[in-house]
Parts: sequence; structure tokens; C-alpha cells
Amino acid sequence: MKTKTIENLGEFGLIDFIKKHNTKPKKHHNICLDIGDDCFSFNPHTKSKYIVTTDILIENIHFKREWATAKQIGQKAIEVNVSDIASMGNTKPLYAFISLGIPKNTSIDFVKQLFSSIKSTCDKYDIHLSGGDTVCAKDITISVTLIGICYDKPISRTGAKNGDLIFVSGTFGDSCAGLEILSKRKSLKDYERNLIKKHLVPQARLKEANLISKNMTVTSMTDSSDGLFKSIELLTENKGAVINMEKIPLSQNLIKYTNKDYNKLYNCALFGGEEFELVFTINKKDKTKLEKLLPNVTCIGYINNGKVTYLQNGKPKKVKYNGYKHF
Amino acid sequence: MKTKTIENLGEFGLIDFIKKHNTKPKKHHNICLDIGDDCFSFNPHTKSKYIVTTDILIENIHFKREWATAKQIGQKAIEVNVSDIASMGNTKPLYAFISLGIPKNTSIDFVKQLFSSIKSTCDKYDIHLSGGDTVCAKDITISVTLIGICYDKPISRTGAKNGDLIFVSGTFGDSCAGLEILSKRKSLKDYERNLIKKHLVPQARLKEANLISKNMTVTSMTDSSDGLFKSIELLTENKGAVINMEKIPLSQNLIKYTNKDYNKLYNCALFGGEEFELVFTINKKDKTKLEKLLPNVTCIGYINNGKVTYLQNGKPKKVKYNGYKHF
Repeated sequence: MKTKTIENLGEFGLIDFIKKHNTKPKKHHNICLDIGDDCFSFNPHTKSKYIVTTDILIENIHFKREWATAKQIGQKAIEVNVSDIASMGNTKPLYAFISLGIPKNTSIDFVKQLFSSIKSTCDKYDIHLSGGDTVCAKDITISVTLIGICYDKPISRTGAKNGDLIFVSGTFGDSCAGLEILSKRKSLKDYERNLIKKHLVPQARLKEANLISKNMTVTSMTDSSDGLFKSIELLTENKGAVINMEKIPLSQNLIKYTNKDYNKLYNCALFGGEEFELVFTINKKDKTKLEKLLPNVTCIGYINNGKVTYLQNGKPKKVKYNGYKHF
Repeated sequence: MKTKTIENLGEFGLIDFIKKHNTKPKKHHNICLDIGDDCFSFNPHTKSKYIVTTDILIENIHFKREWATAKQIGQKAIEVNVSDIASMGNTKPLYAFISLGIPKNTSIDFVKQLFSSIKSTCDKYDIHLSGGDTVCAKDITISVTLIGICYDKPISRTGAKNGDLIFVSGTFGDSCAGLEILSKRKSLKDYERNLIKKHLVPQARLKEANLISKNMTVTSMTDSSDGLFKSIELLTENKGAVINMEKIPLSQNLIKYTNKDYNKLYNCALFGGEEFELVFTINKKDKTKLEKLLPNVTCIGYINNGKVTYLQNGKPKKVKYNGYKHF
């Protein structure tokens, strides 16, 4: 009999195993939001709460040195963590802890550029580089833990109510298309360069998240790091929703790239990960206020009591998970 | 001209580069103890402070699967971080964030055992498993960030005063000898098994650190994760010290293993890393109190205004850094 490997279990199987074996925190741990959301949150007996997120990026899994510069790799390592902090609402990132695994033969220039880029992206968000570890590794490994403060109650993934509208920031599918273009390595058109940029240097929506959550009750929120489809799944656990597929915002670059092949287009937009847009729900009474506050958000559907239904031109369309598998 | 690699720069060169480029934290960052100590510390406007440490372990660099069981690897990943928390004084570890990189072909059993061991070592210290990330990697990669609380002012590495006594917990050199025995892979004697155990399953000195710092002023403290020599270097930055080499505590197992070859013995005891004993300084008036409180600590020397001098039977002995190099 062949030994069962982690590939058979899959990432979500592994996470389920971990969740099942985790014990309930005790009262003295002062936890506001436990493992399983975009951030963990604990409370030092003040109105503000601390929020923590961690992400690990590994060469040839998350990035390739022939596709991305040291500067881009460093930027992305910070942005993806700020994106998790952002999706908690009215927040400020504070402290970054960076563990670096570096192969012996890496050029000093590369390492200095990587570090400088991590540092300047931290500066952009007024994050203090607070600690870390540097070790030798076969592949470049960047583990980031980011601690921030949340000035109000952290917005979890699970608070959406029946009738709430589902909004998103930005557009979807660009990062996925960017990755596809990179892997083909041909001479590039302008719109292709833009798509690649969305993949290599994503921007966290920290300002937008702060602005929205300061001005209205956001009932649930996450970022789309595992793709829009997965985000909707997370916000609708034990709930239903109606999603209007034609409302999903798409960039002109992506439309050009897919040459209006709708299958490809929606494959990128729904299942493409490493896109760091906000996906969130609000009470419908706040719709006008939100759209005045932030013109570049889009309502793509609403929460209901049924199951999650995707509509294309008013007709239900079967959509099955087709996203990136870690194992 | 050959490109200069990170191997040329070395770990300490890299850390110097990072330190030089780090900016001063701003007042609103509320920092008690900045990057460069065993833990970073920030203050949520209460008497207690939060302390944070992070460490990354990579297969074939920090451990080998043919030498260590999944259980031992998981235990060590937590103990080494608890050891950093311990060296801040009167502390309690609280939240662990674990990022795991796992090769696709790893057996489910191995991963489950690794996780169970991480979990049960967390339970031993009442640490809540609070977050993490699981990704695919070529080598098993375990990045741990541990947040704890420090009930008093964190004990830094740099507070030792002229005349302070230098104390250590436990014995030195076992872990280094254990690693050497493992790499030879022969049939094992009992004392060799004990040395290996010290390497594979170190125990953080959390209880001891709490007890000492609750009962007297510890002027400086660190753990000996990079070896005793390096710890002494850290505590005596811009200071001097006299170290009596024959006072350095050694286990019977190590004496047997080295067969009284003193060069080998002191090589293990001074330069062997991955040993998690406390190295700390106190005012000499507290000596008797300390030795009553904890009989298994040893005074190995004292701080002075000169340079660091190692004495063997009263005579100065030249000792040069000969420890592990990451790059």
C-alpha cells in the first residue's frame, strides 16, 4: 500500500486537521478573534485590539527569481501581510518580523535590494521593522509576521446578515493573467506588462478598508488572496448569496488579454489567487453612502438564506472550485 | 570578477547591514526594547509589556529527518522560541503563529505527528496556537513567531554593570556533542544517547528565568542559542569580563564523550550552539540568595571595565570565535 502523502490530504484537509485539534483558548488569553480569520486578535484591556497575521513566501513556489526583481519580491512580501491587516477594518500596521532563508550563493546585491525593498515598503505604511532571523536555505524563504492595531472591533469573515450587499474593491483576474503571461516568457505588449505588475507588485487596500470601516458598519470582510470565489465561500459559510457574474469588475487589460473568451476571463476573475482586493458586506441602507465615499467599489450581489448561486444574465450558472492547490 | 555572495558577507555582516538601515522607531510605536535583543518588546500602556520572538527552522540546515522524529522536530521548534521569551525575565508565553512549508510527498502521518507535537509543546506552556500558514516547499520549513507577556521591565542583554557576577543555568557543550554523534551514525552508548537528546529536544529555562527575575534584579540576560562564547560577547558589548574556564559547568556525559580531551571539551562548551541555557548577570550582593533559590546555577565570572579575558587555572588563555556559521 502506498503511503498517504500530504498531497492526498490537500491544504484544506490539513487546515481542517489543525482546526480540529486546536483547543479552546482560556479566558486569560484575552482573545477577540481566534485562528481561522484573516488576522488573529487579542485585547490588552483597552478599546483598541492587537491584530496579527503571518505569511510565508518560498522561491519557485510563490515567486521565481527570473520573473521578479528583488525589489518586487520584497514589496509583495509586505503588501500581502498589510492586506490581511486591512481586511480587519479600521487598522494600522505597526511591527514587522521577518525571517529570511537565503542560499549561500546568493549575491550580496540581491540580498541588499531585497532587504531595502522590505524596509521601504514598511516605511510606506509606517511599519517598524522589529525583529527576525536570517538563516541559510536552499531556496529564498521569506516569513513575515505583522502585528497591527485595530481601533474598533475587528471585522470578521462571518458576520454577514441576510440581505447584506456584497461589495468588492478594484478588479479581478489581473494577477492570474499576469502569472500566466510570465510563465510563457514572450515579448510583451503594454496591457500584458500591466497584468504582470498586478501579479508581482500587488497593493494592499489599507486606506480603503480604513475609510469604509470608519464610516459605516462593515458586517464581514476578507481579502481575496485565495481568489474571489474562495472569498465569497468564506463570507457565506452557513449562509447563501446571489452573485451576478456580469457585475464582477474586470480590467480592460484582462479583457484584451483573454480576447473576450468568457470562460478564460471568469476562470481568472473567480479562481485567480494572489489578488489583494477587499471583499465585504454591508447593510443595504449604507449603499449610497459607500458609493459616494469610494467610487471604485462594486456591488456584486447580496447575502440570502439559501445557498450560493452565481447568475449570468439572470440565469443560474454552475461554478465549481478550480483554484490553486498548494499540495 | 566573481560576484560577491552572501557567504562572503556572513550572517553577522548581514545583520549589521540590516541594523544600519533600520530607522529609529517613532514615539507612537510604543517600543520598550527594539530589534537586536532576544525579544522585541512593545507596551500597550500598562505595566506589562508584550514581547515577541521569531525563529525559522529549515530541514537539512537545522535538522535532518533521518536523525530526528517528527515529534522531536515539533518540540524543538517551540522550545527554542520559549527560550527567547524566558530570557526576558518574568514572562509568560501566550500566542504562537506557525508557518509550515511541507514537501508534497511528505506522509500524512509525519505531518500529523509534527503538528501534534507542536500543539502538545504549546500546551505544556499554556500557549495558544493562534495562527499560521501552510504552503508547499522543497524542504520542511517551520517558522514560529511567539508573543508573550513580560510582567516587569524586560531584561535586555546590555544592562550588566561593573562587578556584576556572570551566572549560567545547566551545563554546556552537550548539544554540540550530540550533533557530532548523530552525524557519525554508529551504534550508541547510553551517554551518547543523552547527549543526542540534549541536541534534539532542548528544554527552555522558562521556570528558572521567572523564578530568578521575580526574586532579584537581573541586570542582563540572554539564552545560549548561539553558544556560550557568543552569549558572553553579547552581554559584554562595550564592557569587559573575567571568565574562569574551569567554572563552566560540564555534564558527565560530555566528559565521557570527549575522553578528557580538553580542547574538544571546551570547543563544545564554548562554541556549540543550539543550547538553551540562561546566561545572565546579577549584583554580587544577590549571589547567596540566587544559589539558595536555584542550586543548579553556576557563577563563571564577573563583569569588569577591561576586555573579556578567559582564565584557565588563573592564567589567561586565548579564545577565538569558532562557532557555527550560517553562511
